[in-house]
Amino acid sequence: MTEVEAFLKDHSDRFVEELKTFLRIPSVSAVSAHQGDVRRAAEWVRDQLTQAGVASDLVETDGHPIVYGEWLKAPGAPTVLVYGHYDVQPPDPLAEWKTPPFEPDVRDGLIYARGATDDKGQMLTHIKSVEAWLKSVKSLPVNVKFVIEGEEEVGSDNLDRFLESRKEQLKCDVAVVSDTSQYAPGIPAITYGLRGIVACEVTLHGPSQDLHSGIFGGSIANPCNILAKLLGQLHDDKGRVQVPGFYDDVTDLLPEERKQFAALPFDEQEFLRSLGAPAPFGEAGYSTLERRWARPTCDINGITGGYQGEGPKTIVPAKASAKITCRLVPAQQNETIIKSLEQFLRDRCPSTVRMEFKTYHGCPATVCDIHSPFMKAAKKAVKVGFGAEPVLIREGGSIPVVGTFKAVLGVDTLLLGWGQNTDNLHSPNEHFSLDAFHRGIHASAALWAELAKGS
Amino acid sequence: MTEVEAFLKDHSDRFVEELKTFLRIPSVSAVSAHQGDVRRAAEWVRDQLTQAGVASDLVETDGHPIVYGEWLKAPGAPTVLVYGHYDVQPPDPLAEWKTPPFEPDVRDGLIYARGATDDKGQMLTHIKSVEAWLKSVKSLPVNVKFVIEGEEEVGSDNLDRFLESRKEQLKCDVAVVSDTSQYAPGIPAITYGLRGIVACEVTLHGPSQDLHSGIFGGSIANPCNILAKLLGQLHDDKGRVQVPGFYDDVTDLLPEERKQFAALPFDEQEFLRSLGAPAPFGEAGYSTLERRWARPTCDINGITGGYQGEGPKTIVPAKASAKITCRLVPAQQNETIIKSLEQFLRDRCPSTVRMEFKTYHGCPATVCDIHSPFMKAAKKAVKVGFGAEPVLIREGGSIPVVGTFKAVLGVDTLLLGWGQNTDNLHSPNEHFSLDAFHRGIHASAALWAELAKGS
Repeated sequence: MTEVEAFLKDHSDRFVEELKTFLRIPSVSAVSAHQGDVRRAAEWVRDQLTQAGVASDLVETDGHPIVYGEWLKAPGAPTVLVYGHYDVQPPDPLAEWKTPPFEPDVRDGLIYARGATDDKGQMLTHIKSVEAWLKSVKSLPVNVKFVIEGEEEVGSDNLDRFLESRKEQLKCDVAVVSDTSQYAPGIPAITYGLRGIVACEVTLHGPSQDLHSGIFGGSIANPCNILAKLLGQLHDDKGRVQVPGFYDDVTDLLPEERKQFAALPFDEQEFLRSLGAPAPFGEAGYSTLERRWARPTCDINGITGGYQGEGPKTIVPAKASAKITCRLVPAQQNETIIKSLEQFLRDRCPSTVRMEFKTYHGCPATVCDIHSPFMKAAKKAVKVGFGAEPVLIREGGSIPVVGTFKAVLGVDTLLLGWGQNTDNLHSPNEHFSLDAFHRGIHASAALWAELAKGS
Repeated sequence: MTEVEAFLKDHSDRFVEELKTFLRIPSVSAVSAHQGDVRRAAEWVRDQLTQAGVASDLVETDGHPIVYGEWLKAPGAPTVLVYGHYDVQPPDPLAEWKTPPFEPDVRDGLIYARGATDDKGQMLTHIKSVEAWLKSVKSLPVNVKFVIEGEEEVGSDNLDRFLESRKEQLKCDVAVVSDTSQYAPGIPAITYGLRGIVACEVTLHGPSQDLHSGIFGGSIANPCNILAKLLGQLHDDKGRVQVPGFYDDVTDLLPEERKQFAALPFDEQEFLRSLGAPAPFGEAGYSTLERRWARPTCDINGITGGYQGEGPKTIVPAKASAKITCRLVPAQQNETIIKSLEQFLRDRCPSTVRMEFKTYHGCPATVCDIHSPFMKAAKKAVKVGFGAEPVLIREGGSIPVVGTFKAVLGVDTLLLGWGQNTDNLHSPNEHFSLDAFHRGIHASAALWAELAKGS
């Protein structure tokens, strides 16, 4: 590691310049006008990997290309799959950026640009660490495979097919993704659990068009009234989901996990204040972090029906609908939950309206073994890079690829987030700490060594 | 009446031409670009009244002018106040009109134009009948006062002040309004009861902005979830309103009324088919007509919260709101009902969200004495004009001015509708039967005689 660390030190300025070059490419995957830019970013990543010593290529898909690279010259050593993405969110609203989103600007040690933290800056740390090994000691202590996609921000439509079709080629022992956050500044973290998600939309159809509520009200079922009645039964007064069997498969948190969460600095009042919420809320018997990370939910994300404008309008609406997502935790089964939810609503829906139920793509919850050698290696590596023992946390959101890696490749994923929750990802003035960038490269370089040791 | 009837016959073609002239004026009160047209319509009505022999003037208001006219040369005879409106709804969507909305076109005995039935064609019948009396027998058997406003389609904002401030001048024995419908073709009707209305909007405020439902879901109250829970309690499974005291002041229908309603031709299956509703609905123990005309309701007219676009979006919404109206029946008190509704929601609203409750303008239910001499006179007059005994019906909608006439002037209103429910009022291809126009004039002419007789 001494030679590697020396290389990192010597080339740290160049790494920042390269990150800037990467950030200047407006690889907005959602906007077709940027198609050329997205491809340019893919080519840039391929070239970075190649110059680092990792044989790489673009793999064409029905959408944006996937960059695939591999270095497999460490026989007997573990094989690590690094996943990341080179595409970025649209930069809107542009007017709110202090400096242009695709002209990276460094202020107070933070680099501001769309994609700085999500995920260009974080992902690049692994390419740079590999380069450092391959250019200093001329080899890596592990085998690495890179899968860097260009459609993460638009649903990764072509990734699953790629992973399925290259299952053999992608065989590995563990996956590494840096696309999450530290727990807080100065408190690096490894995210070992993610909630899953099921998504659906329920629509109640009543009369064929909006009716005058004076002429017809009381003699015709009102889809808004009925929708409220149905959805109002989803939770009890304490917010516990009433869908039969909803909690049946939930794996309880281990005492050890609850202890870890409880030990994390967390200011409940500051949390409420920052969200502007009037009062604490959540399932009885669980802390706020437990509710966010390890308890399932059923949230109406949108509800709509009838008149949406200003003032009153006297109609019985023709229809009403709601978008609902449930965040799931291990070991809830997506299929079971969505079916139970549909059945719950159908059982309670009167024949005076017609129910339409539509499901959207979801993904299962995942949790990794916190006592695995990979996890131990990652903890040591993060400590090398960041100078502090990482805390083990979960995350309430969903990263579908982690479930896919488990399902298709049979491996756990180490979620090593170098960013902060406050990095404005998906918002104007996205940024990433250059200190975290360098520490991330260092941690990544250490990770290859620790994984090889089998910790 | 013989001379009057002869006059009606001799001038029927001219009356139609005059109606066409009236309909050509695009007096859309809601659209400021039509302000000049609205005024032109007011002037046209004033001139019509004046040439008929009724001294008339425009009364300026903060909005569009009110036409006021009076002929008071029948000492000792009853005084009748005729109310109508010269403004019309916007004609949109224009593309759906077969002929232009302000170029009246007669097809199959129907005159097509915006305002044909609502209310220009219907209102004009009373001016023409007065003209017939004053130009043939040179006097009227009753005193008449005309109040024709230009803001009915935009909420009659200035009418109440006008009525209040001219209370003495407007003193009368009964009011007459032709702005409703017959029961069906060939079944003329007098509407003797109207439902009232209270309107409100409830908004639940949660976090200060939409939050990521993965990161925060389960730890923060979701205003959509809570709104559904609150509104879902408004009705029991059979659609009966659960607000305490809601039905306390309801005057039950008289056996005589229920008998009258039951005798009306009404095809339940055709009713459902025409509305496109999957199944019958309504309060147990009441017929569809009773539910529509004489039972109170509580309808969500619009509900909104969170994401409104296509597909899923994983947020906990910052707020959710619903527009609610209750149709009221005699003798429910508007103030009591709206207060109970608010209290019902507040009692059930948890402290995790902040409730905002906003009320809109409403009006009380009204019912007229079906055995009064005025009603008897009206029944006779309608029979003269339409050749059939009118049925006595109620109406589920609200006509606020009827309540105001009762409250301010202390009089009942005779709602003599010459139109049909199918006249497309407020819709493209609005029309009015010219036969009904002439019969309406005839009935109106007979009404003055019958009212004078004291029937």
